[in-house]
Amino acid sequence: MKLTNDQIKEIKEQQAVENKTKRATVLELEKILYEAVPILDHGFIRVIDYMGDDSSIVQAARVSYGKGTKKVSTDAGLIKYLMRHWHSTPFEMCEIKYHVKLPIFIARQWIRHRTANVNEYSARYSILDKEFYLPAPEHLAAQSQSNRQGRGDILEGEKAKQVLDLLKTDAEQTYNNYETMLNEKYDGSVIDQKSIGLARELARMNLTLNTYTQWYWKTDLLNLMNFLRLRADHHAQYEIRAYADAMLDTVKKWVPITYEAFMDYRVGGTEVSAKGKEVIKKLIKNEKIDMDSSGLSKREWNELMEAFDLKNKLI
Amino acid sequence: MKLTNDQIKEIKEQQAVENKTKRATVLELEKILYEAVPILDHGFIRVIDYMGDDSSIVQAARVSYGKGTKKVSTDAGLIKYLMRHWHSTPFEMCEIKYHVKLPIFIARQWIRHRTANVNEYSARYSILDKEFYLPAPEHLAAQSQSNRQGRGDILEGEKAKQVLDLLKTDAEQTYNNYETMLNEKYDGSVIDQKSIGLARELARMNLTLNTYTQWYWKTDLLNLMNFLRLRADHHAQYEIRAYADAMLDTVKKWVPITYEAFMDYRVGGTEVSAKGKEVIKKLIKNEKIDMDSSGLSKREWNELMEAFDLKNKLI
Amino acid sequence: MKLTNDQIKEIKEQQAVENKTKRATVLELEKILYEAVPILDHGFIRVIDYMGDDSSIVQAARVSYGKGTKKVSTDAGLIKYLMRHWHSTPFEMCEIKYHVKLPIFIARQWIRHRTANVNEYSARYSILDKEFYLPAPEHLAAQSQSNRQGRGDILEGEKAKQVLDLLKTDAEQTYNNYETMLNEKYDGSVIDQKSIGLARELARMNLTLNTYTQWYWKTDLLNLMNFLRLRADHHAQYEIRAYADAMLDTVKKWVPITYEAFMDYRVGGTEVSAKGKEVIKKLIKNEKIDMDSSGLSKREWNELMEAFDLKNKLI
Amino acid sequence: MKLTNDQIKEIKEQQAVENKTKRATVLELEKILYEAVPILDHGFIRVIDYMGDDSSIVQAARVSYGKGTKKVSTDAGLIKYLMRHWHSTPFEMCEIKYHVKLPIFIARQWIRHRTANVNEYSARYSILDKEFYLPAPEHLAAQSQSNRQGRGDILEGEKAKQVLDLLKTDAEQTYNNYETMLNEKYDGSVIDQKSIGLARELARMNLTLNTYTQWYWKTDLLNLMNFLRLRADHHAQYEIRAYADAMLDTVKKWVPITYEAFMDYRVGGTEVSAKGKEVIKKLIKNEKIDMDSSGLSKREWNELMEAFDLKNKLI
Repeated sequence: MKLTNDQIKEIKEQQAVENKTKRATVLELEKILYEAVPILDHGFIRVIDYMGDDSSIVQAARVSYGKGTKKVSTDAGLIKYLMRHWHSTPFEMCEIKYHVKLPIFIARQWIRHRTANVNEYSARYSILDKEFYLPAPEHLAAQSQSNRQGRGDILEGEKAKQVLDLLKTDAEQTYNNYETMLNEKYDGSVIDQKSIGLARELARMNLTLNTYTQWYWKTDLLNLMNFLRLRADHHAQYEIRAYADAMLDTVKKWVPITYEAFMDYRVGGTEVSAKGKEVIKKLIKNEKIDMDSSGLSKREWNELMEAFDLKNKLI
Repeated sequence: MKLTNDQIKEIKEQQAVENKTKRATVLELEKILYEAVPILDHGFIRVIDYMGDDSSIVQAARVSYGKGTKKVSTDAGLIKYLMRHWHSTPFEMCEIKYHVKLPIFIARQWIRHRTANVNEYSARYSILDKEFYLPAPEHLAAQSQSNRQGRGDILEGEKAKQVLDLLKTDAEQTYNNYETMLNEKYDGSVIDQKSIGLARELARMNLTLNTYTQWYWKTDLLNLMNFLRLRADHHAQYEIRAYADAMLDTVKKWVPITYEAFMDYRVGGTEVSAKGKEVIKKLIKNEKIDMDSSGLSKREWNELMEAFDLKNKLI
Repeated sequence: MKLTNDQIKEIKEQQAVENKTKRATVLELEKILYEAVPILDHGFIRVIDYMGDDSSIVQAARVSYGKGTKKVSTDAGLIKYLMRHWHSTPFEMCEIKYHVKLPIFIARQWIRHRTANVNEYSARYSILDKEFYLPAPEHLAAQSQSNRQGRGDILEGEKAKQVLDLLKTDAEQTYNNYETMLNEKYDGSVIDQKSIGLARELARMNLTLNTYTQWYWKTDLLNLMNFLRLRADHHAQYEIRAYADAMLDTVKKWVPITYEAFMDYRVGGTEVSAKGKEVIKKLIKNEKIDMDSSGLSKREWNELMEAFDLKNKLI
Repeated sequence: MKLTNDQIKEIKEQQAVENKTKRATVLELEKILYEAVPILDHGFIRVIDYMGDDSSIVQAARVSYGKGTKKVSTDAGLIKYLMRHWHSTPFEMCEIKYHVKLPIFIARQWIRHRTANVNEYSARYSILDKEFYLPAPEHLAAQSQSNRQGRGDILEGEKAKQVLDLLKTDAEQTYNNYETMLNEKYDGSVIDQKSIGLARELARMNLTLNTYTQWYWKTDLLNLMNFLRLRADHHAQYEIRAYADAMLDTVKKWVPITYEAFMDYRVGGTEVSAKGKEVIKKLIKNEKIDMDSSGLSKREWNELMEAFDLKNKLI
């Protein structure tokens, strides 16, 4: 990630601010506020605003349950209870806003999470930067043979070189032709004074999907956790997981108690189906089990055995 | 509105806080943060948190439109432009959280605005306060004869007295019986040690709809303006308008530039239909117009004439 | 539930319709379309429209995954896969619309599910029916001593009689005074020709929360399942569970394959936390476990033991 | 638009279905159900399911307003009233589902409308078709000089040829390299048996933004109208407007009364700001007006004059 001088200056200015407020404030998050955390080769996330902290969740829950919550002795106990029983509204009382720079094909995955507010850089109005994502060698994976949406082995040698060359050449060529069609360089200089340029809203269609875009993305803590549960998961595509992992770190700084409960109940937890429960009960009682009589499919069976580290029972 | 000593103490404590933050901060709003603004006889609103200010809207718009917005010379000019052209996403970048105490029948209107986060006091868990809304004499209106959802003249004399007596007596009686069924007073004292109480989740059904409830309500500025456009309107029921008016004041303190644009384009503005435009065009040209040839219904015609102060043309 | 003659006639007319359509159609659901299923003493649910069926979910998933799904041999296999892995969007492709009659205090719980469309009978415009919910004797439960939102033993004898009398008397009295204030009976007849009535939007505040209201409620299958998972659960208040149970039946008729997967993975399933997984692993290996070293709270421990029928390990 | 033989066969099969239903059915929409309406060079929209009709809106409104609506004599009168006064919930009672094939850069605009359900073809799972959008000569517009998001004159001669050549060449080359990286052709045939292919989720990043994708898109009538108001507007980019215009036609067939009201009040209507109203009032009274004293900016002034055909007053 290379920030422009303008960006570096802007971040410094933002970080130099010292306002007074009566609002809930989180020291650990303030320390990294506005800071650009590098992701992939040119991307970043920056926390640029937030509302609330762990105690805001507790406070909202206590408004809901009134005197009924007075007996729960600690904030941590209450937050764990809320998380365990899927209480949702108290977590919606916290809000966070990120500035994100990311490749377009990742932006397209991300935007499917609809319960968020977005302001994206518009290539109808302005010219996109000449920046595109090229995977690091260790992320240049082959198609998985067993899983249609997964990755297999890392490409090596000639094949890896070929892929990287193609990605680089095509991105550069299409970007150069984008400028040619616009009759304008990114810096605003006109290429041919005697010619006219294609409308920006049209020229952009020539760019490849690894071109970087950026947006402001604002959501509440509940929906952020829903996003992170899916996107920080090992089934998620590596490139979006890189963003989700960095965001998980910001959640840890922002609402550490909620973060702990989230890791325990959601990220580290497992759903066991009604049929799966019967299998587990028999396993505990040392009764005989087998896939056929369990009603589970092979895939379900293996997922269950893996969740409980029963590798010798994989089929 | 009578705050309890506990509430007064809590508010004072919240207001005594002085945190440092790098976030956007609004001095005028900080001044009233946590303060309870009285509404109706026992209700209130309190701003208890916020995110962003006018400049956050501008900043988000500039991310979207990139260099394309550099030419707009002022923040006010840009915000007016966004409002006029129904740009929505930059206004979603600001968020506000209220603590509201309100009668249940008003809460039921309010909750129809779905794009908000809510934590309401739960009468399944806790006992509701003995507080119910009784209209002030000047709001005790008769049913409108012309408008099925409106109010007509103010009730006076015996009729007014009768209504207030009935409201008061019924609310008190049903509340007392609520306690009897619970076998418990609001303060937690048991009424009859030898008896048991009905479940709270059932007993609450005996309360009348003017009983006060309270909630935390959090929304973004765009959806807040949608709410206020409908609920601060003169067609809205007086009781919810009282809340909306107080909230409008908080918007004015929070985002004064956006407030101005909102008042000009939304609250003070008018929608003119395609057919209505033809009528206005003829009026400007001093051409003859009449309702029959306009294609407008009588009601539409009158709404149009009123919007442009043409009282002599009312039918 | 007593339907009026008008309602019975309307339902018969709706059911006599026989249109031709090219849309996906579900025979089992058509059989009960428009039928009022009685709930509680005066309530009902009626399915009044629907879009899609099990195959619509499959079709949407196949559009998403393209040729990638061709290998999954059966529709049931694919739907189970989608449910197990929390794929959400294919289930959003089905939509259903209910007409529901329900007590106001239940409507207030229900409306918290925001991702739905609602048209409720408005007491600003029209006079509410004289119908209010009175629990059947077997549902007249005491407050639970152990669980602040739960029910305990059933009230009996004098206490039960007292509660029912109070509920009945208060509802009738407040309704009668509602009519007095309106100066109008439900059937539209004026009570005192020489007097005027209070505005409807005000008079309604005198009604108790067990008064019945009604609405059209429309949602997609994903959000319906989210609703049912919470509201058909044994932690839900009996009165809303009665509605949820009847709706579960309609889901079974509408999308039987999805229903099976939902019952297996969601309703009958259990979430096990990261810490809980360690306990289960030790139980399977016959290793020694105890609450203290597990990191689980007493409540968590007991919930886990109950989920797997280990009653002898309850603490 | 070239449909594959498989697609043509599927559409014929869908259209040959004749189910019986008690649901509201719209004959005019049934006639085009499943039909692919061509848009741009390779795109289409198809209505593939719907729920409700004009009478469903009326029915929902009558549930809300109860006997209060009986006086409105006609369905058309009621629907116009609802539209004029921004009543939203009755229009949410109708739902429609489209199958859309569209270029990715248009899909990215479209998806910003969040209140809809989407299932998009996934290039993580499957290989995208070799189809990309090339504008017809009459849509190959230059960048507007006056409007940063708009189009100016049509490109002609050499410049037009150059642009089309670049778009075509780059799209073909990047697609070919996409296949090379995948080591697989679209039809599933392996290119080099001795080599392995890059993961699909990575290879897709090499495609240009004019590549076609497809999705199922389902929304309610209210949100569809919000979409169409923005996207069928002359400020919208031509390419998305082409889709919106075709969808407007389906709305006309589906809910003709609502369509009329929508065209009159929304599409053909104008918002006049508080300040703008003062100008119009003076124009009607033949009083002197000028921009400076009006408080309007030059841009606002001109928009107002244009809305009322006062071309001689443009500045």
